[in-house]
Amino acid sequence: MLAFSSYIISDISKNQAVKLSLYFSDGRRKVDYVLVFHQRRHTSIRSPASASVSQDREVFMELGGAGDGEPMEPGDHEMRLIRQEFEANLLEAGLEIERDRELKSHGPSFTRVHAPWPVLCREAEFLKIRVPTKTVRSEYLTAAVSCWVSKQLKLILCLCSYFFFLYNDSDSLSLSLSLSLSLSLSLSLSLSLSLSLSLSLSPPLSLPLPFSLLLCLVCQVLHEEWARYSAFYKYQPIDLVRKYFGEKIGLYFAWLGVYTQLLVPASIVGIIVFGYGVATMDTNIPSLEMCDQRLNFTMCPLCDRACDFWHLSTACGTAKASHLFDNPATVFFAIFMSLWAVLFLEQWKRRQISLSFSWDLTGIEEDEVNEHPRPRYETVLLQKRQKKQNNKKKKKKKNEVGRQRKQKKLTWKDRLPGYLINVSSILFMFALTFSAVFGVIIYRITISAIMAMSPDPEIRHNVRVTVTATAVIINLVVILILDEIYGAVAVWLTELEIPKTETNFEERLILKAFLLKFMNAYAPIFYVAFFKGRFAGRPGNYVYVFNDFRMEECAPGGCLIELCIQLSIIMLGKQLIQNNIFEIGIPKLKKLVRTLKEKETTPKAREEEKPPQQWNLDYALAPFEGLTPEYMEMIIQFGFVSLFVASFPLAPLFALLNNIIEIRLDAKKFVTELRRPVAARAKDIGIWYNVLSGMGKFSVIINAFVISFTSDFIPRLVYEYMYSPTGTMHGFIDHTLSYFNVSDLKPGTAPQNSELGNITLCRYKDYREPPWSPDAYQFSKQYWCVLAARLAFVILFQNLVMFLSLVVAWVIPDVPKTIVEQLKREKKLLVDVFLQEEKEKLQLIQRLFDLPIPGGGPRARCRAASFSQFNRNIASSPMKENENSKHTAV
Amino acid sequence: MLAFSSYIISDISKNQAVKLSLYFSDGRRKVDYVLVFHQRRHTSIRSPASASVSQDREVFMELGGAGDGEPMEPGDHEMRLIRQEFEANLLEAGLEIERDRELKSHGPSFTRVHAPWPVLCREAEFLKIRVPTKTVRSEYLTAAVSCWVSKQLKLILCLCSYFFFLYNDSDSLSLSLSLSLSLSLSLSLSLSLSLSLSLSLSPPLSLPLPFSLLLCLVCQVLHEEWARYSAFYKYQPIDLVRKYFGEKIGLYFAWLGVYTQLLVPASIVGIIVFGYGVATMDTNIPSLEMCDQRLNFTMCPLCDRACDFWHLSTACGTAKASHLFDNPATVFFAIFMSLWAVLFLEQWKRRQISLSFSWDLTGIEEDEVNEHPRPRYETVLLQKRQKKQNNKKKKKKKNEVGRQRKQKKLTWKDRLPGYLINVSSILFMFALTFSAVFGVIIYRITISAIMAMSPDPEIRHNVRVTVTATAVIINLVVILILDEIYGAVAVWLTELEIPKTETNFEERLILKAFLLKFMNAYAPIFYVAFFKGRFAGRPGNYVYVFNDFRMEECAPGGCLIELCIQLSIIMLGKQLIQNNIFEIGIPKLKKLVRTLKEKETTPKAREEEKPPQQWNLDYALAPFEGLTPEYMEMIIQFGFVSLFVASFPLAPLFALLNNIIEIRLDAKKFVTELRRPVAARAKDIGIWYNVLSGMGKFSVIINAFVISFTSDFIPRLVYEYMYSPTGTMHGFIDHTLSYFNVSDLKPGTAPQNSELGNITLCRYKDYREPPWSPDAYQFSKQYWCVLAARLAFVILFQNLVMFLSLVVAWVIPDVPKTIVEQLKREKKLLVDVFLQEEKEKLQLIQRLFDLPIPGGGPRARCRAASFSQFNRNIASSPMKENENSKHTAV
Repeated sequence: MLAFSSYIISDISKNQAVKLSLYFSDGRRKVDYVLVFHQRRHTSIRSPASASVSQDREVFMELGGAGDGEPMEPGDHEMRLIRQEFEANLLEAGLEIERDRELKSHGPSFTRVHAPWPVLCREAEFLKIRVPTKTVRSEYLTAAVSCWVSKQLKLILCLCSYFFFLYNDSDSLSLSLSLSLSLSLSLSLSLSLSLSLSLSLSPPLSLPLPFSLLLCLVCQVLHEEWARYSAFYKYQPIDLVRKYFGEKIGLYFAWLGVYTQLLVPASIVGIIVFGYGVATMDTNIPSLEMCDQRLNFTMCPLCDRACDFWHLSTACGTAKASHLFDNPATVFFAIFMSLWAVLFLEQWKRRQISLSFSWDLTGIEEDEVNEHPRPRYETVLLQKRQKKQNNKKKKKKKNEVGRQRKQKKLTWKDRLPGYLINVSSILFMFALTFSAVFGVIIYRITISAIMAMSPDPEIRHNVRVTVTATAVIINLVVILILDEIYGAVAVWLTELEIPKTETNFEERLILKAFLLKFMNAYAPIFYVAFFKGRFAGRPGNYVYVFNDFRMEECAPGGCLIELCIQLSIIMLGKQLIQNNIFEIGIPKLKKLVRTLKEKETTPKAREEEKPPQQWNLDYALAPFEGLTPEYMEMIIQFGFVSLFVASFPLAPLFALLNNIIEIRLDAKKFVTELRRPVAARAKDIGIWYNVLSGMGKFSVIINAFVISFTSDFIPRLVYEYMYSPTGTMHGFIDHTLSYFNVSDLKPGTAPQNSELGNITLCRYKDYREPPWSPDAYQFSKQYWCVLAARLAFVILFQNLVMFLSLVVAWVIPDVPKTIVEQLKREKKLLVDVFLQEEKEKLQLIQRLFDLPIPGGGPRARCRAASFSQFNRNIASSPMKENENSKHTAV
Repeated sequence: MLAFSSYIISDISKNQAVKLSLYFSDGRRKVDYVLVFHQRRHTSIRSPASASVSQDREVFMELGGAGDGEPMEPGDHEMRLIRQEFEANLLEAGLEIERDRELKSHGPSFTRVHAPWPVLCREAEFLKIRVPTKTVRSEYLTAAVSCWVSKQLKLILCLCSYFFFLYNDSDSLSLSLSLSLSLSLSLSLSLSLSLSLSLSLSPPLSLPLPFSLLLCLVCQVLHEEWARYSAFYKYQPIDLVRKYFGEKIGLYFAWLGVYTQLLVPASIVGIIVFGYGVATMDTNIPSLEMCDQRLNFTMCPLCDRACDFWHLSTACGTAKASHLFDNPATVFFAIFMSLWAVLFLEQWKRRQISLSFSWDLTGIEEDEVNEHPRPRYETVLLQKRQKKQNNKKKKKKKNEVGRQRKQKKLTWKDRLPGYLINVSSILFMFALTFSAVFGVIIYRITISAIMAMSPDPEIRHNVRVTVTATAVIINLVVILILDEIYGAVAVWLTELEIPKTETNFEERLILKAFLLKFMNAYAPIFYVAFFKGRFAGRPGNYVYVFNDFRMEECAPGGCLIELCIQLSIIMLGKQLIQNNIFEIGIPKLKKLVRTLKEKETTPKAREEEKPPQQWNLDYALAPFEGLTPEYMEMIIQFGFVSLFVASFPLAPLFALLNNIIEIRLDAKKFVTELRRPVAARAKDIGIWYNVLSGMGKFSVIINAFVISFTSDFIPRLVYEYMYSPTGTMHGFIDHTLSYFNVSDLKPGTAPQNSELGNITLCRYKDYREPPWSPDAYQFSKQYWCVLAARLAFVILFQNLVMFLSLVVAWVIPDVPKTIVEQLKREKKLLVDVFLQEEKEKLQLIQRLFDLPIPGGGPRARCRAASFSQFNRNIASSPMKENENSKHTAV
């Protein structure tokens, strides 16, 4: 079997001996690209099916991804033929290749590719890398320099019609050729194998400026200024990142940078809001009332039989802690963060436009390569076609051509099994997530019940803390495990759908993975925020699960404090564990395993013979597996920052701290631990923007519900303005507690032996009619009033924030002013040039033909114009000077 | 004084004598453009200020808009000089002009402009009209034809480098030159007068295809197929409209077409929903209960003293009518219409992209002309500069140049007075609108009170009908009058802001006019929907205005029926009156006045001497005043269709009927009653899209509130599922009526002599505690419960509809599939051409230099490549053939 992979050679190494291996054996031609053919020791059994296929010369090769053992796998001999033909086609396309001198029977064998200058030129022209004519801003440019520049420019223009000429306003002159060309050589092989070649800048040696030094500089800067933790306070050298890794990865880091930068103000405001909570903790009347032992509210027992009545003042601690997060400043913060999310998206849009302007991406369309059908798609299509043909042969042989045209693409019928598996799997995984959440609930209920019955008062006292902590940790572990599983399942499911192009594949994968991972990460948090304690029933009419265990309730301080604990542990745990274990530990482990394996397979003697070549070193690194996991991690984090921010104002701070590390961690990974990926062009971050924007919209309604339903903000407001006799918060706690007649408890559920003496009335947190009312224990008028206020707040909050978001998005222009002005300046320059040319043309006509301009039919003038154009063609063609220089040189 | 205006000559006339006047006196050169200098009889007094200004050669001329009597107005003599200089500059720019032979001392004098072919060519190149290379799809194209085509193509390419070559797949060959060039001749006069020239298609006579006939055809088709009512069922010939009037007007009619088309399904669904109301009217339990005389609800009197107690069954009629609009189907219809609005916007986006593809607008930027500073802006800037200079002369003369540069634009300080006037005027007009609404309320209250006291029972019986009808008509008249006033005020206010460019001006004007007209049209409707009857108080505690008049309440059937009446009368009345009087009547009147005036000023004898020239006829038409009023009318109508559609399902039908007429009315107006406007390019409908989209979003929340608060939908649901003892609607009416103890009425407000005998308890529509409750007349638990349900419904409805809208917008791709495919095909063709060329180039190099391709340094190969490019330049230049043809021809 022959596996196939490809990467760009990295320029990072400092070892001089290795540096030499960056070039072909002639020491001049640079290795731009490495193809690896990995031949396994065991040759597969040649099935008759594959033989017949190869006779039809319609062979498919899977790029990278592991084939699933289809009968299409070609034999060893054919693969070698394919390789030869493939390399022959590379040569025909003008590329130059170099192979290892000795032919190994197994293990990786390398083919180095060099793209000569004319090929680069051709491809540059092909891709229409446009010429943004920037105004030469510096006025220090002397005539001599300008002459030299224009000569160089003409040379360059001759080399390659479209170039990027940039004169910085600093003193130094820098000709930066934007040549991140992604050569898409859809080779005209009978094989429909699409290979994407991305060539780093490799200018001809004859150019006067030290271009060849440029890239070395790039990697050094990346290494020293970017991929180290000590540089955390610095801006990222995004332009260099883009130069070395291509636009797609450049955009990811730019995005991460903008996000991290904008987290700074959010963190500061978050800290202030938290500080407000700390400062007002001791003056907050509701928590003071809760802690006041004189008020002496006797609460109904928290569990059947085993639990006793209790005094509300014993829950003083949670009441105080809950005020930290449940105070009026939180409402302001929720509004602030919703607008922050909009601001972030707008800021990113601006940055993206700036980047696409300075990287000259404005005109490009989607990457060509990604529009090619995927190999898997082609395979399935071929199979389908063959099947049809076989069927047809049995029936009739006519009308074959017409039919064949119709089967050029897969229909929904071919994909139906895939879709069905998809839907059922996703539903199954949703069920899995929910049952995991439910399992933890059951764990909490049962363990609390068991611990409450414990004779040890120490254990009984710590029930809530112990249960909450262990449950959250279980939640976290479940989330982390399911996260990895879901990631793999999403890839598998997307493969089943047989998407046509790589873009399609990526979008579907992202959508699925996002849905699954989002559900997974947020299901327990949603439960605590909106469902916990709402189905517990009331004293005398509790809801039971499994006939024995009462549904859990929130702590006396409110559900918000529990939500906060849940959120902070899951967020912190997820980030710490994923960063440390999954992003650092596992790749290191994998690398270790790989090198150990290599050592086993290759004899030791050989390795000592020759120094390691750069392509060998690069091959030992882990392959690049796309940006999806990186983005996904950040998007889930964005969810923590935006969705439930009303309950945890410190979330932006934690995110900020994490991201400062994350940027450098990712940078290190890309520079040193991954094979240099094939540069891909991209003009935006694609579907991720939509995901972010959707999340921002979703966060508005979620925060509205958290504030109005999870926190006590609305009940407090309603009490203060509608029920409070003094117009202050005094008496609020009393107002929120309903009365319950102990004799109404179901038989056998009353406390077995109460320490508080003979209790006839106990209190519980709800708005219900007292036992002496005609409709006892029904929801009271206050309940409906508070509910209406809560709902009104949701409407008000949502519409206010949506309106403000619209205003923010409208006020911030998408295109930064500097760029608008620059574009205008460029346009003016272009018009000036054009007008000047037009004038010269007219003069030429007059001189050549001596025709009076206003007279003559249109035909004559037209001819004149065309002649002047011809003249201009000659004048603008740099041939003259070139010819001259050639003559003098030779 | 000299007024200045300009227009394109129209091609519509069928009179042969007039047709001749479409050309210059030589009968060959076509009149493309007419400049009118209108000289008034009274020359203005030459102020010393203007003289000094003209000495500085910095004279400003106001284009069109009436000057506001500034001292800048130049004298008669100077204006003539300016005109001469202006025309000289036109000549210098390559245009050809023809003036009237006799010079009139007053009245309009015409300067006809002809743009010769080379000028068109130059401007075409200047505007970079791109060449979409469309695949030649037809296979019937024989070699001979293809040869002929390619020859023609080269000729055309010589004439004008960029052209549009289209071969339709029909049998006939059509070369359509997309030449709607908007020549922006920013003439390098010392005058900063920007003149936009738009040239209709006028190809050289030597071209073999009868292009000159093409336009005649266009106007004939427009006349016969478009601008007549009998063609209402046909699609509009949008491409021709665009050809004749330019893209901007073309887009308006296309938009109107899409809107009207999409109103058809909306109307059908609306009719079905209305039909459902009609069908279920007799089986609806609440209205049956209201009509049931046996239930005998005694209602509290509707006014103090004069009114008696009354039986609810007497309001049976309104109850039944209200069911027509207030039924469950309305909820469905509101959701449907919200999605319809999204669908409409998406559909329009697609249509716009299709059009910009087929009209080749994809690459264009904003119209150049509109980016020029407006004359008014320049004037103010000049004044400011002069002021500064004067000040400076007094102080010191140095540093002048540096300062002058800074004053290149107006700052907020210069605009501050304008802004202040703006804000205060808008606030004043808001106040005016509200006081108009309030005035009508007062009218209603007082008239009802007075009529109720009338001794005539006939009058008393018809109080509600009379008052409602007259009030709505007053509302309508006020709206119509204020609408016209606000339109003029918005223009005046925007002028005060001194916007820099025409685009700026238009956007600000639209925003202001929209805000004012929207408020004006919808304020009374909003009042009825959300405020009427909510501040009336309750029996015994009514709210009084002016100490004497009770605030009005809704009819017993609910406010929805009143909303419906209000909406339908205002919508229908506005449309009918605006269409008939403002769009047909007033222009006709104006035209009459203008012709009468002309007759007065010009002696009769002259007129009989010569036949009327086309430019005279055109001048007699009304000038084109922009599309803003047309769009505005439609947008306000869109508001009626979307905003309150929950209360009036027939609104789309009325809008549809109106629009079918509106399209033809507008078409007629543009073709026959307006001067042919200067064609303007536009790639979209601009800010109107945002207005529409904002309105669509706003409509969701408005409809949610109408359904939940104005209609009885939610109370009915709550009753059925929470309070009804039988689970049906029986008893609903009783449940909505609260009890009132007549003895609690304030002294002197009880009915003077009741016909119903001795009443102790009366009922009123509200959810309040009965008199025997401890907190009598307070809001009852039901009130809060219903309120919570109403609010919950708003949240549910809003979020559901927003989510569905997102889904709809996501499902419908912005770019139609056909266009995506066509773009792909074009790209493929381009790649094929490029590869072919590349191959030829390589062969040329090999032949010329005999260099082996794989060898040689990059420099040598580069030189070779450049030479081949030179060769290609020569080959692609059409000169060779031309030169030959010239030699043979001469």
